[in-house]
Amino acid sequence: MQRYFIDPTSWNEDTVVISGNDAHHIKNVMRMSEGESVICVNVKAQVTAECCITNIKDDVTLTVLNYQNEAVELPVHVTIAQGLPKGEKLESIVQKSTELGVDRIVPFEADRSIVKWDYKKKKKKQDRLVKISKEAAEQSHRSYLPTISPVTSFSDVLAILDDYDHVLVAHEDTTRQIEAKRLSYYFSLFKPDDKIMCVIGPEGGISEGEIEALQEAKVKPIRLGRRILRTETAALYFLSALSYHLEEQE
Amino acid sequence: MQRYFIDPTSWNEDTVVISGNDAHHIKNVMRMSEGESVICVNVKAQVTAECCITNIKDDVTLTVLNYQNEAVELPVHVTIAQGLPKGEKLESIVQKSTELGVDRIVPFEADRSIVKWDYKKKKKKQDRLVKISKEAAEQSHRSYLPTISPVTSFSDVLAILDDYDHVLVAHEDTTRQIEAKRLSYYFSLFKPDDKIMCVIGPEGGISEGEIEALQEAKVKPIRLGRRILRTETAALYFLSALSYHLEEQE
Repeated sequence: MQRYFIDPTSWNEDTVVISGNDAHHIKNVMRMSEGESVICVNVKAQVTAECCITNIKDDVTLTVLNYQNEAVELPVHVTIAQGLPKGEKLESIVQKSTELGVDRIVPFEADRSIVKWDYKKKKKKQDRLVKISKEAAEQSHRSYLPTISPVTSFSDVLAILDDYDHVLVAHEDTTRQIEAKRLSYYFSLFKPDDKIMCVIGPEGGISEGEIEALQEAKVKPIRLGRRILRTETAALYFLSALSYHLEEQE
Repeated sequence: MQRYFIDPTSWNEDTVVISGNDAHHIKNVMRMSEGESVICVNVKAQVTAECCITNIKDDVTLTVLNYQNEAVELPVHVTIAQGLPKGEKLESIVQKSTELGVDRIVPFEADRSIVKWDYKKKKKKQDRLVKISKEAAEQSHRSYLPTISPVTSFSDVLAILDDYDHVLVAHEDTTRQIEAKRLSYYFSLFKPDDKIMCVIGPEGGISEGEIEALQEAKVKPIRLGRRILRTETAALYFLSALSYHLEEQE
């Protein structure tokens, strides 16, 4: 069944009024009629409901048939702070991280980011990332729509560390140290609803200066398995391993 | 240091003779001279050695300086049987699965594969997949070069199931059954050196007929977290979760 993320202001008890792009999609792309049903997700309340179309004019009005009790969200809130990678990798990271349950993505210009963010085109690029995330959230049946922050600086990442209960940084050199703590040690410290940030460098990794600044802020370096991962694979490993830890252990 | 996967026949005790493309790469791309060092990996013996160039003619002759004792491979052997996906997704799956430690990838034409494999171009496409895997293996410092099997049929996949100690299938419907066994139950059955296959459907998932045939062959359905994953994300989740289970738990 088609699924729409609906702004909380469009919900009024058991009635939902859809306007704009989503109304256009229902009327002109899906060509739906009164009496047909869709899934509406109230992203703020994390409520998912099967709704029946009761009226189609400019807006589409629906009535809730039943509320669904899907536990599809990770029990913790994960932010990926991603060093700006080359080409279209950021789009892929946004799409895949959304499928895997991310809460927020904060792209930042890292010391070793080769491509500098094109601030002239930033509005258009930002909109595109938000659209990719929304589509991925709908396709993977999420009840929460991730936040895609505008591209920022490393110092702005440092400035928000205090908002988090746990901050980790993927650090390639850590993979070589056998005595380093394993990832499960850090995962085992997470409690329900904790806010977690994982910092991931761009292609060349996190710089010496960046790792020093992070370690001064008590950020813990982690390894993601024994192999060297490309930057666009690191977030996917982190989120998959965390899902396994929290959702797939007996 | 530059890293080359060298055929076992090119090793003779502590001497390595590199010819063909890799010799060309050393001479004309890297422009290396006698006395410089590279990493040579004997893929069959899973031996990794730092080698010094002692002679450059048509071939490049090297002497082993020291053997490296890197534990970079998963302790089990994982085959991904991947339903043929659309577009360039197979290339991405081959690249990322190689980074994440896969042993073998068997692409197959599934009932719901939308794109049919172009058998006219198969040699060229197959060569390209092998090249992508080799480059990813070098970049992620693997000591084993994965096998990329030619695209095959579902019945050929069924025919090789007996070669494996454990066969699992990612099955979307399983994600809805709360009483289903968790992934960690199956992972906990794996012993070192076991051969494991994970079957993953194409965009539309595994068909009814395919899941029945697999279940008759005692293949176990698994879920990969609580969210619906795109086909190209499923293998990455499986390998990341397995790496976490085997390599990153205290």
